[in-house]
Amino acid sequence: MTPGEPEGLSRAAAVCAPELERIAADPSVPGDLAAAIRHVLLQGGKRLRPALVLLAAEACGAHDAVPRLVRPACALELLHTYSLVHDDLPAMDDAALRRGRPACHRVFGEALAILAGDALQALAFQVLAEPVPGVPPDRQRAAVVVLARAAGPAGMCGGQALDLRAEREPPDDAGLAALQRLKTGALLRAAAVIGGELAGAPPEGVLALGEFGAHVGRAFQIADDVLDVVGDPAAMGKPAGGDAAERKVTFASRFGVPAARRLALEAAAAATAALDGWGPRAEGLRRLAAYAASRDR
Amino acid sequence: MTPGEPEGLSRAAAVCAPELERIAADPSVPGDLAAAIRHVLLQGGKRLRPALVLLAAEACGAHDAVPRLVRPACALELLHTYSLVHDDLPAMDDAALRRGRPACHRVFGEALAILAGDALQALAFQVLAEPVPGVPPDRQRAAVVVLARAAGPAGMCGGQALDLRAEREPPDDAGLAALQRLKTGALLRAAAVIGGELAGAPPEGVLALGEFGAHVGRAFQIADDVLDVVGDPAAMGKPAGGDAAERKVTFASRFGVPAARRLALEAAAAATAALDGWGPRAEGLRRLAAYAASRDR
Repeated sequence: MTPGEPEGLSRAAAVCAPELERIAADPSVPGDLAAAIRHVLLQGGKRLRPALVLLAAEACGAHDAVPRLVRPACALELLHTYSLVHDDLPAMDDAALRRGRPACHRVFGEALAILAGDALQALAFQVLAEPVPGVPPDRQRAAVVVLARAAGPAGMCGGQALDLRAEREPPDDAGLAALQRLKTGALLRAAAVIGGELAGAPPEGVLALGEFGAHVGRAFQIADDVLDVVGDPAAMGKPAGGDAAERKVTFASRFGVPAARRLALEAAAAATAALDGWGPRAEGLRRLAAYAASRDR
Repeated sequence: MTPGEPEGLSRAAAVCAPELERIAADPSVPGDLAAAIRHVLLQGGKRLRPALVLLAAEACGAHDAVPRLVRPACALELLHTYSLVHDDLPAMDDAALRRGRPACHRVFGEALAILAGDALQALAFQVLAEPVPGVPPDRQRAAVVVLARAAGPAGMCGGQALDLRAEREPPDDAGLAALQRLKTGALLRAAAVIGGELAGAPPEGVLALGEFGAHVGRAFQIADDVLDVVGDPAAMGKPAGGDAAERKVTFASRFGVPAARRLALEAAAAATAALDGWGPRAEGLRRLAAYAASRDR
């Protein structure tokens, strides 16, 4: 059974849209760079990472996370969007399509696509560090460190480097898991942790959210690998079969689609278990975990 | 008369070296990415931006800026180094040499060079946001915002976009000034401001440092343009004449070398004037401004 898109996700997409519009509307940004940023930032997407921030904050008792934490939650979408733009570059995946539209470098050229990604990464840290009503500065400082570590050489960029290497030397099972943990897991984990930090959660709450986010990241990536085999290109906004065409080792190619589906569900269950005892306030996070494992786009 | 390298600069190079080594030695970073980062980060360079942070902090009374603020000062070098790596990419300036060694993409390939730059930007924000003894979290939060704005689409990345456009449409005098202000000025200005923030300077002190840094940035860029015409490639670690070969409009090509030299000295004088009344504690900054205008590498 595939659960529909959870409310927490559609709500995040709705509340982040005007905030991302505002962030992309700075009149002091040179026109072509602004156009490239708008092209990649305002073309939809699931907004999974900001949803995780907001749901994690709510699970920690921040009833007013919307609207209070929407802007810092958008930092995660800015960071994620930069990574997509750079992943799509000719020197990386050389992708033609992203979210159903031509990739940034196909419209604006490679140089401007590199710059748009660079600028989006800086914007992410700016938005996360700007004062937020009711959030103590040391929690924001901590949130910046969490995002930076997740994005940096021992996080997402490291995962991308492992991915490059995997094209030459297919990883073993442990290598595949490490690649996933860094490439997609680190940022999803960071999103959950940052929600906890911004909500002022105690250390053990932040720790549990980190565990939850890491498991959700695994569920999400395995589902992604499965979708690349069986997904509907129209729903995904990009062609399926890309991994197989590049002979990429994925959870689906290594274990087969049925076993991969099972692994994704196990990861979602582990995520839910990390929030054992959190009660109804964590229901949004639980639904998100279930969706991550069995989504259809 | 060309003043020698000021003490503040050689000291910054000396105290930052071991800290940058430490930052680049994280064993959890995948090997090839770590090698690319070490290649670009540990190959010398003037360390002008960390020097500005430390001298600005000292000018605000932080007598123990060395060693206390060395690590956050290195954030500026990490950010600057990322920008060099991306500027040198084939899609940008396609440079073969940097600081006397082969450019990152020439050694490690384009994909890894993009990633190394991306990772260095994240590291910059990490290092700036990690707790620093004696610095209140709200000052660190503010420092992150300053760096992010200076690096982002309305700062350095915006300047780089203007530079790309200038290759097609030569800018007028105002456009040339705007390009410089964003491309190199924003980060030098941010370095001075961040030094003030980390030292706990009052608002008017931070403001004066911003003005000082902006003028130093102009002096530095004009001197750079002059060096590209008359400089010694061995001292600079890269070939001279690159701007002319690309028919770039620079301060030197627009106004001629003698007038450009005069403009650089005027900018250095304006920088010094911004610190009027600061007394002997700002002497290091004054020397740095004079050096920026008339350096030989």
